[in-house]
Amino acid sequence: MHFMLQEIQEQPMVVERILQESPRIRRLARRIRRRDPWFVVMAARGTSDNAALYGKYLFETLLGLPVSLAAPSVITLYSSRLRLQKSLVLGISQSGESLDIVEFLRAARRLGALTVAITNHERSTLARNAHEVLLCHAGEERSIAATKTYMGQLTVLAFLAATWGELGDLERELQNLPRALEEVLKRKEEIAERVSRYRYMGECIVSARGYNYATAKEAALKLKETCYVLAEALSSADLLHGPIAIVERDFPVFLFAPTGKAYGHLLELTERLVAQGAEVVVFSDAQEILKKGTVPIPVPVSVPEEVTPHVLIIPAQLFAYHLALAKGLDPDHPRGLRKITRTL
Amino acid sequence: MHFMLQEIQEQPMVVERILQESPRIRRLARRIRRRDPWFVVMAARGTSDNAALYGKYLFETLLGLPVSLAAPSVITLYSSRLRLQKSLVLGISQSGESLDIVEFLRAARRLGALTVAITNHERSTLARNAHEVLLCHAGEERSIAATKTYMGQLTVLAFLAATWGELGDLERELQNLPRALEEVLKRKEEIAERVSRYRYMGECIVSARGYNYATAKEAALKLKETCYVLAEALSSADLLHGPIAIVERDFPVFLFAPTGKAYGHLLELTERLVAQGAEVVVFSDAQEILKKGTVPIPVPVSVPEEVTPHVLIIPAQLFAYHLALAKGLDPDHPRGLRKITRTL
Repeated sequence: MHFMLQEIQEQPMVVERILQESPRIRRLARRIRRRDPWFVVMAARGTSDNAALYGKYLFETLLGLPVSLAAPSVITLYSSRLRLQKSLVLGISQSGESLDIVEFLRAARRLGALTVAITNHERSTLARNAHEVLLCHAGEERSIAATKTYMGQLTVLAFLAATWGELGDLERELQNLPRALEEVLKRKEEIAERVSRYRYMGECIVSARGYNYATAKEAALKLKETCYVLAEALSSADLLHGPIAIVERDFPVFLFAPTGKAYGHLLELTERLVAQGAEVVVFSDAQEILKKGTVPIPVPVSVPEEVTPHVLIIPAQLFAYHLALAKGLDPDHPRGLRKITRTL
Repeated sequence: MHFMLQEIQEQPMVVERILQESPRIRRLARRIRRRDPWFVVMAARGTSDNAALYGKYLFETLLGLPVSLAAPSVITLYSSRLRLQKSLVLGISQSGESLDIVEFLRAARRLGALTVAITNHERSTLARNAHEVLLCHAGEERSIAATKTYMGQLTVLAFLAATWGELGDLERELQNLPRALEEVLKRKEEIAERVSRYRYMGECIVSARGYNYATAKEAALKLKETCYVLAEALSSADLLHGPIAIVERDFPVFLFAPTGKAYGHLLELTERLVAQGAEVVVFSDAQEILKKGTVPIPVPVSVPEEVTPHVLIIPAQLFAYHLALAKGLDPDHPRGLRKITRTL
């Protein structure tokens, strides 16, 4: 079995392990509450940056804390002295060895921020340079395309928000998450059967709104890395501001549209895209939008909207995995990539 | 003549008009300094959001102020009560009628932020809802693909940074900008001659680092809107974190690489991409990288790095314009788009 498939299937276990580590996250949440930051900065690249995007929606919506996604070059190239004394800075990196993320976190600490590393490697450079470390508990990730560490990052961020904001409901939902993920994994054969139609797809758009914008970005990244498909992720609002011009007859658009606050907007978009002749592949639990799309991918979603990105990324990962196989590619070894990317 | 070409050529004049309006910007800068915000939030969509991205690099690097690019749905869909009392919130919209940007700014004002509208329309809903208004002075923009209003937004942001931070050098550079833009416009025939090679290009990557990441995003958006090319913009660092897997022999990558702090990184990237067999189209003033790329587009750049986005966007706009013509399309009327996009 490929590492990628194996690691996709390990994801419920990763969530379990993070829930067991809850005392450490609770302690950090108390420290953050005492510190009372005015805003949060998250520094990350690639898959970790997609997790950070989820974190932005989560912290802004549930905690009311403005979140800035860092442009690391502001520090690493332009040597800015950012005013970060009132901030919490999260550095997110699977390996903990992304040079620019390490450098950003180090500078943030010098500039007075409270710094936290979210990483899969306790002894990494990032972990050693942060005030606090939250681990993804994913075990070694051997596929180059990250899957289970993304789940770990999402879960750490959600659990941190739940304890920081004393959101009991969210905490309980996270306890149910491993079972919800198992439910989705049971459908993996259905996904495998769907991909052959896209054997010769060279480009597509991936879209969503709100919390699942992160899902769209991460799904697009998996399609790029493992299938060499030029998949562009756009929030459905941004899609309407210009890029929709490229959508013509047969153009494939993948949409993540679970029940929730973003649903109505995505339903309208689906109608418009289908009317333009696009091929709309809909991942959802809602019958109405599944029927309106060109190709429905029903996903059992038994969690509230803020936790749906954990659930919806699984069919997307499986889709990328099986499509890579259908295209005759090795999903574990994308050309030109190594596990740790060192950019400054 | 198409509106788009006419409006591209009006850009030096737009900058002139903004410089003449400097007392208004200076007054606002004083008000902001008294208020002493801890961070800045910029809310925008489409082209305006690309201007906001430039603003993020500019304010973070030159003023040390952390900038968050707003996810409007946090307010419009999820009704978050963002903690914005210590913030400056900029709403950027050409028309001033983007519903979600108006809604975000209104909420920010209720939540205690100092709010500023950057718009081309003084009587717009956005302008009427902000504490202060800065105008782009672009005159009516009749092409659907925005060009001169983008230049106006970049210039307003740069002039605001210069006066807020009392950066005399930057202010002087902006005085020279109209002449620098005229220099670039003189080369417009050279660009027109370059495009025929890309008559059948269906997809590409557009990349840069630092300040010109905004240029890459805006160039990609123009290619999407006017040429229906699936152009994905990626910072060169993000490109290395996964997406580089899709770059194979002949794959077109457009790079904006002026002399400056990001140059060394882009030179290395060019070497790597060319070694992979990619077609690298380089926009630069530096001979070395122009020689290393597959297709050089020399751009006379007589301004410091933080002002290069104003200069480099012009050959990109001209490229998109002429490529649309070569593809037999009408650049003024992209399919499926209207001038004002109303998303909530």
